[in-house]
Amino acid sequence: MQNTKSYVQEHKERFINELLELLKIPSISADSAYKNDVIRTADEIKKSLENAGCDLVEICETPGYPIVYGEKIINPDLPTVLVYGHYDVQPPDPIDLWDSPPFEPVIKKTELHPEGAIFARGSCDDKGQMYMHVKAMEIMTKTDQLPCNVKFMIEGEEEVGSNSLGWFVERNQEKLSNDVILISDTGMIAKDVPSITTGLRGLSYVEVEVTGPNRDLHSGLYGGAVANPINILTKMIASLHDEDNHITIPGFYDKVENLSTEERAEMAKAPFSLDAYKKSLDINAVYGEEGYTTNERNSIRPTLDVNGIWGGYTGEGAKTVIASKAYAKISMRLVPNQDWKEITELFKNHFESIAPESVTVKVTPHHGGQGYVTPIDSVGYQAASKAYQDTFGKTPIPQRSGGSIPIVSLFEKELKSKTILMGFGLDSDAIHSPNEHFGVWNYLKGIETIPLFYKYFTELNK
Amino acid sequence: MQNTKSYVQEHKERFINELLELLKIPSISADSAYKNDVIRTADEIKKSLENAGCDLVEICETPGYPIVYGEKIINPDLPTVLVYGHYDVQPPDPIDLWDSPPFEPVIKKTELHPEGAIFARGSCDDKGQMYMHVKAMEIMTKTDQLPCNVKFMIEGEEEVGSNSLGWFVERNQEKLSNDVILISDTGMIAKDVPSITTGLRGLSYVEVEVTGPNRDLHSGLYGGAVANPINILTKMIASLHDEDNHITIPGFYDKVENLSTEERAEMAKAPFSLDAYKKSLDINAVYGEEGYTTNERNSIRPTLDVNGIWGGYTGEGAKTVIASKAYAKISMRLVPNQDWKEITELFKNHFESIAPESVTVKVTPHHGGQGYVTPIDSVGYQAASKAYQDTFGKTPIPQRSGGSIPIVSLFEKELKSKTILMGFGLDSDAIHSPNEHFGVWNYLKGIETIPLFYKYFTELNK
Repeated sequence: MQNTKSYVQEHKERFINELLELLKIPSISADSAYKNDVIRTADEIKKSLENAGCDLVEICETPGYPIVYGEKIINPDLPTVLVYGHYDVQPPDPIDLWDSPPFEPVIKKTELHPEGAIFARGSCDDKGQMYMHVKAMEIMTKTDQLPCNVKFMIEGEEEVGSNSLGWFVERNQEKLSNDVILISDTGMIAKDVPSITTGLRGLSYVEVEVTGPNRDLHSGLYGGAVANPINILTKMIASLHDEDNHITIPGFYDKVENLSTEERAEMAKAPFSLDAYKKSLDINAVYGEEGYTTNERNSIRPTLDVNGIWGGYTGEGAKTVIASKAYAKISMRLVPNQDWKEITELFKNHFESIAPESVTVKVTPHHGGQGYVTPIDSVGYQAASKAYQDTFGKTPIPQRSGGSIPIVSLFEKELKSKTILMGFGLDSDAIHSPNEHFGVWNYLKGIETIPLFYKYFTELNK
Repeated sequence: MQNTKSYVQEHKERFINELLELLKIPSISADSAYKNDVIRTADEIKKSLENAGCDLVEICETPGYPIVYGEKIINPDLPTVLVYGHYDVQPPDPIDLWDSPPFEPVIKKTELHPEGAIFARGSCDDKGQMYMHVKAMEIMTKTDQLPCNVKFMIEGEEEVGSNSLGWFVERNQEKLSNDVILISDTGMIAKDVPSITTGLRGLSYVEVEVTGPNRDLHSGLYGGAVANPINILTKMIASLHDEDNHITIPGFYDKVENLSTEERAEMAKAPFSLDAYKKSLDINAVYGEEGYTTNERNSIRPTLDVNGIWGGYTGEGAKTVIASKAYAKISMRLVPNQDWKEITELFKNHFESIAPESVTVKVTPHHGGQGYVTPIDSVGYQAASKAYQDTFGKTPIPQRSGGSIPIVSLFEKELKSKTILMGFGLDSDAIHSPNEHFGVWNYLKGIETIPLFYKYFTELNK
């Protein structure tokens, strides 16, 4: 029987080319203009799962974009691993900051990726990391080493809140029953520092609209005499943080879990260079909540960020106008125990309450999800840890991620099973940014590591 | 000899149609995409001045858009009136708020304009008001009642700072020599309340750019740990006003002229209904500097307004990103004695000084100009006042406008002459806004009133 390593060596060119083809489809779920591309991507995923050896593959219709389901049940008495991933991607803009077109993948060497990295929107988040599991499945079936049952659930709305996924999971609990959920949609600390994500932040994403006068006004004739919606919006947003960068929304921190000194000391052991961090971002100083380190600020603490703002004249030159409306997209990252629906409500009530009488305010919730923490003594975590030890030669570090995969807590609630987050990307891969990329080395290392998870998970369950 | 009134009656259809043709050309000086249209408009103005009876008409090249110069010198011993106007217009956006296309003029009746109003960008500001002077010229020449010499100077960069006009005026002081400058680029209080603008605010218009990290970042992985340029920009802009809505830029108010209680009482006599004002804008409350009335806030007090703001993801749906850059266009309306270059410098220094170490800030001045006040005892003002008395049957009220025509103070400096601002538009004409319009009644009334100014100005100079 051929082993995984040699199979990867033999087929790596094809593994890479198949991913490049997938990355050429602009499956942008946030923009309805790309509807057909998103649906076409689902079809491609279906084919790839069939080729990888699934016995049953279905395109499952939902109120939104379809979910691709695949399975191979070799023995009902054996454990079942449910693989989750998503085939949709973030919008690529600002387009002009990409060195190569976001949907024309190219492989280029970088300082961190001397073996080359694949540059394209979705290369890491999540087409690349999701496709590692498809190829791992191929290896296990083609080399007769699949040790347990496998189910795949690949969705197309992760970047816009996974609304249809919740709808689908609630209606298919039997079909999706499993012993562990495996996801690669996070990162690892460094190529020589493997890590397993044990915590995720929750999310509340809202859009706000501030309306002043019923039409755009001449800033000379009305300037100073009526509320300028943009000025008001900046005042309102600015007031959401105090001088210590604590969030000022009443009740916002009520349920935030406070880590013990020991836990914070444990976290602080993860290798981190503030100088390298600042250098990689070209910033002179970091900025954040008083009393917490950079790694704490983006993992165990909740945050509030404006993701977009617009209003008035934004074209070339000058226009002396007072806009009728101003808008902003605001997201809050939440920590375990904060309920995203409750936080969204707190935000809405607070934001409306601070609006002066001279404007009207509309707050529209976009989507959100709960935070999540997983124990490191579970069979799933142990299996993942042993897999990394085999391929990286060292024990992975458990780490809290600042990102959100809202559906992880949904899975726990609906499917009663824990999720293992085996991420192979790096923070520097620029996901959600121009020039997103995924190291070829990371891609192949992931494909090599995943089958070992199945092996150990099945053994440890015996 | 036919009188003005009957000539207007006889030719009003043509007067209106000629203006409609002029309004069809999108002469947007702020957007270089319309360069050819702006230049084409200058050619049309040239033809119209020739048809109106000017002996000499020239397209004068400048570093920017050309200036159309025309003249009719009937006798060097008689006084000379210099007419100024502009043929460029503001950008029409937001386009989708127009009820009819901005450059496809239509005449519709409104509550304030039962005789109909011309809806199009530039209908009032300033093509319509400028063209009143061209038609008044036609009347005076065709009916042999031109009492003095006339010069026209129509520019194409008023909406973007009149840079080339300054260049032109400095180089043509002899050619432009005159006894009074006549401009219709302001408004009047109401159709039954004629007024003459005796004060204008100055202007300083700047663009600011705040840069944080060197690329857009994932708001989950970096949120809370790095400065978000949009959040920082809102904080910086919000800090430019205190809780009483005074502007916080050090030195900003140092040279502001404080009106006496008498002067303020005089101003307060102008008819004004706060309820009607709020109703016309659909606002529940006005908003502005503590201690001043609405009419004071938009005339004798300086202001600071954001005219445009943008950054991050502004498309459909949600994108969890921290933008690398955020931008805003900010304008300050200034009052007499405030020097716009000095204020621009004060803004720049202050804005840069309040930026946290974690971002870099760039302030780019767009343009600006001085404020202006004219005495009401001048021959020019008296002539204008008598002209209004003849056509409106009542004495016009002197009023300070919140708007800016920066070049008025330039004229005084370079040409040593005072400017008379005879405006026939209404605040409700929505200049600089969607659905800009100009009443047909106002247009014709202006054409009828202007020749009388020439008559009285010449008589009073005897």
